[in-house]
Amino acid sequence: MADFELILRGGTVVTAADTFRADVAIRHGRIVSVGSGLGSADRIIDASGLLVMPGGVDSHVHLAQHAPPGTPQMADGFETGSRSAIAGGTTTVISFAVQPRGASLRESVRDYHTKAEGQSYCDYGFHLIVTDPTPTVLGQELPALVMDGYTSFKVFMTYDDMVLNDRQLLEVFDCARGCGALVMVHCEGYDSIRFMTERLERAGKTAPYYHGASRPQSVEREATHRAISHAELVDVPIMVVHVSGREAMEQIRWARQKGLRIYGETCPQYIALTADDMKGFNMDESGGKYVCSPPPRDHASWEAIWEGIRTGVFQTFSSDHCPFFYEGPDGKQNAKGKTSFRWVPNGIPGVENRMAILFSKGVSEGRISVNEFVALTSTNHARMYGLYPRKGSIAAGFDADIVLWDPNRKEVIRQERMHHAADYTPYEGMEVTGWPVMTLLRGKPVFEEGRILGEVGDGRFLARELSPYATSPGS
Amino acid sequence: MADFELILRGGTVVTAADTFRADVAIRHGRIVSVGSGLGSADRIIDASGLLVMPGGVDSHVHLAQHAPPGTPQMADGFETGSRSAIAGGTTTVISFAVQPRGASLRESVRDYHTKAEGQSYCDYGFHLIVTDPTPTVLGQELPALVMDGYTSFKVFMTYDDMVLNDRQLLEVFDCARGCGALVMVHCEGYDSIRFMTERLERAGKTAPYYHGASRPQSVEREATHRAISHAELVDVPIMVVHVSGREAMEQIRWARQKGLRIYGETCPQYIALTADDMKGFNMDESGGKYVCSPPPRDHASWEAIWEGIRTGVFQTFSSDHCPFFYEGPDGKQNAKGKTSFRWVPNGIPGVENRMAILFSKGVSEGRISVNEFVALTSTNHARMYGLYPRKGSIAAGFDADIVLWDPNRKEVIRQERMHHAADYTPYEGMEVTGWPVMTLLRGKPVFEEGRILGEVGDGRFLARELSPYATSPGS
Amino acid sequence: MADFELILRGGTVVTAADTFRADVAIRHGRIVSVGSGLGSADRIIDASGLLVMPGGVDSHVHLAQHAPPGTPQMADGFETGSRSAIAGGTTTVISFAVQPRGASLRESVRDYHTKAEGQSYCDYGFHLIVTDPTPTVLGQELPALVMDGYTSFKVFMTYDDMVLNDRQLLEVFDCARGCGALVMVHCEGYDSIRFMTERLERAGKTAPYYHGASRPQSVEREATHRAISHAELVDVPIMVVHVSGREAMEQIRWARQKGLRIYGETCPQYIALTADDMKGFNMDESGGKYVCSPPPRDHASWEAIWEGIRTGVFQTFSSDHCPFFYEGPDGKQNAKGKTSFRWVPNGIPGVENRMAILFSKGVSEGRISVNEFVALTSTNHARMYGLYPRKGSIAAGFDADIVLWDPNRKEVIRQERMHHAADYTPYEGMEVTGWPVMTLLRGKPVFEEGRILGEVGDGRFLARELSPYATSPGS
Amino acid sequence: MADFELILRGGTVVTAADTFRADVAIRHGRIVSVGSGLGSADRIIDASGLLVMPGGVDSHVHLAQHAPPGTPQMADGFETGSRSAIAGGTTTVISFAVQPRGASLRESVRDYHTKAEGQSYCDYGFHLIVTDPTPTVLGQELPALVMDGYTSFKVFMTYDDMVLNDRQLLEVFDCARGCGALVMVHCEGYDSIRFMTERLERAGKTAPYYHGASRPQSVEREATHRAISHAELVDVPIMVVHVSGREAMEQIRWARQKGLRIYGETCPQYIALTADDMKGFNMDESGGKYVCSPPPRDHASWEAIWEGIRTGVFQTFSSDHCPFFYEGPDGKQNAKGKTSFRWVPNGIPGVENRMAILFSKGVSEGRISVNEFVALTSTNHARMYGLYPRKGSIAAGFDADIVLWDPNRKEVIRQERMHHAADYTPYEGMEVTGWPVMTLLRGKPVFEEGRILGEVGDGRFLARELSPYATSPGS
Repeated sequence: MADFELILRGGTVVTAADTFRADVAIRHGRIVSVGSGLGSADRIIDASGLLVMPGGVDSHVHLAQHAPPGTPQMADGFETGSRSAIAGGTTTVISFAVQPRGASLRESVRDYHTKAEGQSYCDYGFHLIVTDPTPTVLGQELPALVMDGYTSFKVFMTYDDMVLNDRQLLEVFDCARGCGALVMVHCEGYDSIRFMTERLERAGKTAPYYHGASRPQSVEREATHRAISHAELVDVPIMVVHVSGREAMEQIRWARQKGLRIYGETCPQYIALTADDMKGFNMDESGGKYVCSPPPRDHASWEAIWEGIRTGVFQTFSSDHCPFFYEGPDGKQNAKGKTSFRWVPNGIPGVENRMAILFSKGVSEGRISVNEFVALTSTNHARMYGLYPRKGSIAAGFDADIVLWDPNRKEVIRQERMHHAADYTPYEGMEVTGWPVMTLLRGKPVFEEGRILGEVGDGRFLARELSPYATSPGS
Repeated sequence: MADFELILRGGTVVTAADTFRADVAIRHGRIVSVGSGLGSADRIIDASGLLVMPGGVDSHVHLAQHAPPGTPQMADGFETGSRSAIAGGTTTVISFAVQPRGASLRESVRDYHTKAEGQSYCDYGFHLIVTDPTPTVLGQELPALVMDGYTSFKVFMTYDDMVLNDRQLLEVFDCARGCGALVMVHCEGYDSIRFMTERLERAGKTAPYYHGASRPQSVEREATHRAISHAELVDVPIMVVHVSGREAMEQIRWARQKGLRIYGETCPQYIALTADDMKGFNMDESGGKYVCSPPPRDHASWEAIWEGIRTGVFQTFSSDHCPFFYEGPDGKQNAKGKTSFRWVPNGIPGVENRMAILFSKGVSEGRISVNEFVALTSTNHARMYGLYPRKGSIAAGFDADIVLWDPNRKEVIRQERMHHAADYTPYEGMEVTGWPVMTLLRGKPVFEEGRILGEVGDGRFLARELSPYATSPGS
Repeated sequence: MADFELILRGGTVVTAADTFRADVAIRHGRIVSVGSGLGSADRIIDASGLLVMPGGVDSHVHLAQHAPPGTPQMADGFETGSRSAIAGGTTTVISFAVQPRGASLRESVRDYHTKAEGQSYCDYGFHLIVTDPTPTVLGQELPALVMDGYTSFKVFMTYDDMVLNDRQLLEVFDCARGCGALVMVHCEGYDSIRFMTERLERAGKTAPYYHGASRPQSVEREATHRAISHAELVDVPIMVVHVSGREAMEQIRWARQKGLRIYGETCPQYIALTADDMKGFNMDESGGKYVCSPPPRDHASWEAIWEGIRTGVFQTFSSDHCPFFYEGPDGKQNAKGKTSFRWVPNGIPGVENRMAILFSKGVSEGRISVNEFVALTSTNHARMYGLYPRKGSIAAGFDADIVLWDPNRKEVIRQERMHHAADYTPYEGMEVTGWPVMTLLRGKPVFEEGRILGEVGDGRFLARELSPYATSPGS
Repeated sequence: MADFELILRGGTVVTAADTFRADVAIRHGRIVSVGSGLGSADRIIDASGLLVMPGGVDSHVHLAQHAPPGTPQMADGFETGSRSAIAGGTTTVISFAVQPRGASLRESVRDYHTKAEGQSYCDYGFHLIVTDPTPTVLGQELPALVMDGYTSFKVFMTYDDMVLNDRQLLEVFDCARGCGALVMVHCEGYDSIRFMTERLERAGKTAPYYHGASRPQSVEREATHRAISHAELVDVPIMVVHVSGREAMEQIRWARQKGLRIYGETCPQYIALTADDMKGFNMDESGGKYVCSPPPRDHASWEAIWEGIRTGVFQTFSSDHCPFFYEGPDGKQNAKGKTSFRWVPNGIPGVENRMAILFSKGVSEGRISVNEFVALTSTNHARMYGLYPRKGSIAAGFDADIVLWDPNRKEVIRQERMHHAADYTPYEGMEVTGWPVMTLLRGKPVFEEGRILGEVGDGRFLARELSPYATSPGS
């Protein structure tokens, strides 16, 4: 009998700190040893010439998220979304369980479990989106759900059906402090956006491009400053998600220099898209393919995001995968969006390209090291959201979630190669250097050279530990 | 017949820029000439050894402000408040006409005129406090009132009966932009204060001292940042009033370095009082004498305020005179305030000591020049609020509003010497160097050596021009 | 007999603080009164429609400065330089008395007096350039010269024949502290410039354009930081002269926010010229017309300079008039400069256009007020360098140094209209709005509508008081 | 035959990124595998309850450094210094080979090899201290020495016998750029220190305490800014060593935010000592035990250093071990130091306590993670100075340089327990939590529970690769 079930041989192991040649031995879905002379295995995979990196953890994806009838429906459920994830080298996604206003959070979580169970190609967890922080939710549901492994909340400072006012934000922050949860905050100011949107509409400026004009960087910056101030008042850490440019980035940096524990996330769209992409052809509605919030900015913002990455402002690089159809199966999904940007659903697909975009623009173009790449795409997500030391590294005892990566392969992103359900990719035609060759989920090859090998249902739910970056409960 | 009605002879004239020996000739209430060899006059006042400075313009005083029945009533109406002003060297006050929610602004203005007419010892104008920015208010009343000489608005980001939400702030800012008005903003975050207040009360922390704890600097800073961001979005200048310390000060400085037209005001309480003053004896309610908003901070904040003055962050030094009785004629005015700091009225008297405090701590202690003193107490107020070149300098054509100031006289501030109606001064016992010897209103001596010479009704209403610091209407 | 010798009637008087309609009465070369109804005069000048402003004080001009034989000679002596000054509205210049290495400062001062006496159209003073701070110079000559009215020193951190090392800078700063002198510092790093110059020359990059490349902003910033640090160590204020862009500007701002008394000066070339001007035609030597140090930068730097002006970083706007011939009378003045930028003399003429350029770009284009213009071109120079209250304002007791300015007149700067001796102006062809109509020196019209009315020798030497911005001696 | 020579069993492996339970297998002095079920070994060491961390790399130690006759001699040579290192968990030191002025660098290196060969208990390399950058040194010696594995230079901005002027700094930086070396810079300004020292001596302030007064933070900050500016001019990365407080720290942060590659090092003395330690008893000379440069500052500086560590300003935490005798074997080593602080040798021992101090104040007190500890004490040194991936991590292929660390053990630092030759430790009496239990050098236990097991001569010379943080040669 062989010593191990599987050995990845001859690759270059990359962790968030180290790079070294070693074999990786796997048994029962876990990494057992990393070294040389590891003995025999039932199966040997030749990893020579490849980077052996921890599978991506994407802590910000929206799958099967509830949308009211009559509004655009999310393109990906767990099946297609998780399929897209593993095709991009990502082995864990953390999606969102949304509380509809007036509803029980516990029941909402149950609903999302129903949507996910047996439907996922990769492992998954849930953040809790709190839209209605009643005393019951704050006093009973959230603490109990945290105990059950839903150890992070997300709150919104905009969107009609999700926005919390300042008092509610403070209450949720305070609740998180009490039960040791980490709060993610979508920082854009609702009233400012409404004010701008109505002004633009009155002026007849309804094309998708004006989505960007309706929420300039100052609106994101103001909300970021506000969230930071609330976190300071309550004395609780928060994670500012999907930061788009210099203004919000500098707020986070300023806060951290003051000694506040404010964390930051950024996304591919902020280093690969610009507001001009929303112009489409002749300011027509095809710009709607690039509409997300905060909106993509400009090239100077790309540089600001890299500065933030370089100086440690951002801990995580997530996709904010939030896929909608551009036309949809019936060609009518986005009909209302053609009347005004305000009806264009806010979100774009990205879980499949997140790692390739960061690798190409970051590692291949010399802006970050391959270790920083691993930290930004996997390790830090696992640490931040209570999945460490199960996920996030190549070392004994970790789940054998691994991506074999060819750092030199040049590819072009094309919708026809995508595994999501959306009918376009905003990165169409983008050339990248560095590409996932094989993905393993707990030791099982689930993707190889463009082909899905895994089966739907391979992915398991992950009850998460408390984040070490949150406040310890009771402190 | 004499050439002039009055000549001030032999003093040292001080303007915001210059200091020089000259006589000042007055006719028909106006300064006619400044020079030597000015001819004859009906009356000669010997100003030798004294500074001849423009009478103070205090652009932030609350007089006769409406308070709901059953709540503490403001101690000063126009008679006592304006009497206190001239006794301190101030010849113009700009008070507030408050719109009660649901009421017409135009009618409110009429009410305040009724309270002021024939009742004032000094000249006066009104800012408009907008509490209910309905379409009628924004579209009709405000533009018309601006045309009539009420060229500045004030809005509040806190207080139950006055707070505007972000959308309302944006609408008022936009209205101000359209009609060329300057907006003053009280920057403290309502929700944060409520959150903290309730938390403190639940913990039994109800003494006046906790007023300060309920609104820390971060709450002021957040609101300041928010107001600045809204101003940036609408592209309109604003004046951040009564800045209390480093945090908000740095937001204004940051904004101005970015090129935004954000102005700043500070007050005596932020260089002469601290949060500890609110402790009273044994944390008892006598600390209530020092309760104002934002609250006094600490000695480091005093230094931050001086840094702000020195580096041009602040244009105006106002009293924010907002007088309440500590006991009141019936000894019960503040009864409810003894149950919790939240019921202590927010405001302290100060119009009479504003100039002496700034002169003493600023000029006498070597932190600012006497010209900066004039700018901060008179000229900049007149410029900022559309009273220039009628008020604010010693030069031909200006109203002969003048204070003769003895820069070397040492005095002690005592309630028994005050001319306001309040039953205490928060500056009791403070020693100052520099003191007003005589005050002239439009050429008439109205105060001299502690005695009121003027008559109630001497003061006139001032319809003000558009502020050159506001946006030009139509731009 | 008339009351006054001269009355300027009907103009708009502008001081650093105020703007108002008034007549100005003059007797014995001084302003006696400013007002209306001033009585009679021997002469009345109609100033209606004009601004009546204090004559310019240009605290940074180089006239008749010694140059070693065989090197380019300065184009202007006192006669032509001061003629150029009054033609531009400037009535006082402070020039430099340079100590040659090894020589006595006292004797050097005597030499410069010889060059100036009876030769000047405007009043003048001298700063002392210290190149050889021997114990005798520091311990005897400088203190004595300060007593005699030479109350400011200048030191250089570059130039072969003038550079001081850090120890010498510290000694001069310490000497200034002791005797209450104000030190002006030319902040560019000698070694860095030499290093870059030699590298550029080795690469054959010798055209004038490379002058700019040899001293980038970082070299100016480093020296500025170094000078500030030395001033901090010695605890003495300094004036950083001719700041060219953002990098050095931000150092001064940072220092002042820390509480250090660091002052700043900027010049026309930094808001009106760019490095590209040094390209000449085809990178030929005609770019040499724009060579000065620090070199002109770029349009972003213009904006940085305006930001510095707007936020109070700069107190004075000087010409740094330092005129050389481009060809010279013999056509050979600049022969050696054609072999390499390092031999092009560093300096350009500007005393005649300083005020018009700032007025046009500042006041007419809406960046600064007319009062700020007066402060930057006159009042602050007088205050900073001990000429106040003799020079620098329009008020009783001041010298009647006055410029009548037409704010609306449009003119084009042309060499043929200049009154200097140099054979070009770097501002050739520049259109300006705002122009001096008449200049009065101590009550005497010395320039009117392009014509010189004054006589050589009208100008007098000014022994200056200690600067109130310097350290008090003995403190 | 056993699979491995040695297995460390049951410990918690810590790398700069990860923490996990695993055994570590060693063969031929190298780590072969890290995992579980690793097979058999000749020797098993029980590491349960202990952290298994990479042996410390201390990139800043002075051993056997040449001192002129008649001056205090360095207390440690390689034997005692390296013994002290392994007793503290450090397995590699990089010491300095100093070029005496006028001498050949190549020969100097040879001398230091003679001093080290066969004398070291731990591995070692050499940085090159350049004191005389002649064309031969720059053009021939340095490039050749870099090729031979001396891939980093150190330069000084102070000290009589080592200071370089700005031109020399630029030349050395440029040379480093060309040959891919990394330059370490001692940033303190020579002239400023001399100026202050002489002033203090003149005032009779000669006690050791005045060492601190002679080189305040502004002097360190100025030199840091200057070095950064020179690096910017030449476009080369530099490492600012032994940063002592906020002022210099903020310069590095500012530079990095601008995009410059400026690195930072700090040391135990800046988080554990203060200037007051130099007071000794009654300002007597016993304060000399704490004299080093830059000097220890104050508690606020400790916080600034932690802020720098937390926000990524510092990459390495070194000892700057620079040991002198306080009395010495003859009791007279420091005789001259008692006449003035200027003669007290600048330097203190620390190589043995570096890791324990950082662990205790950093990890045990909750300021940094154990992974950051590994990065700061080992991995980053190895990476920065071309020893990676030979040194600096626990992973297959790395040298088996390992420290077994008890995170909970409480110890007190005492001179009697030290292994250095100096006659005191500046950390006498300091209580720490966390202590090295065993040190392995290339698989051999060389220290265990206070006892030295290794033999002199165990340590080998390390020729180092080019630093990946330096400029690539030819770029």
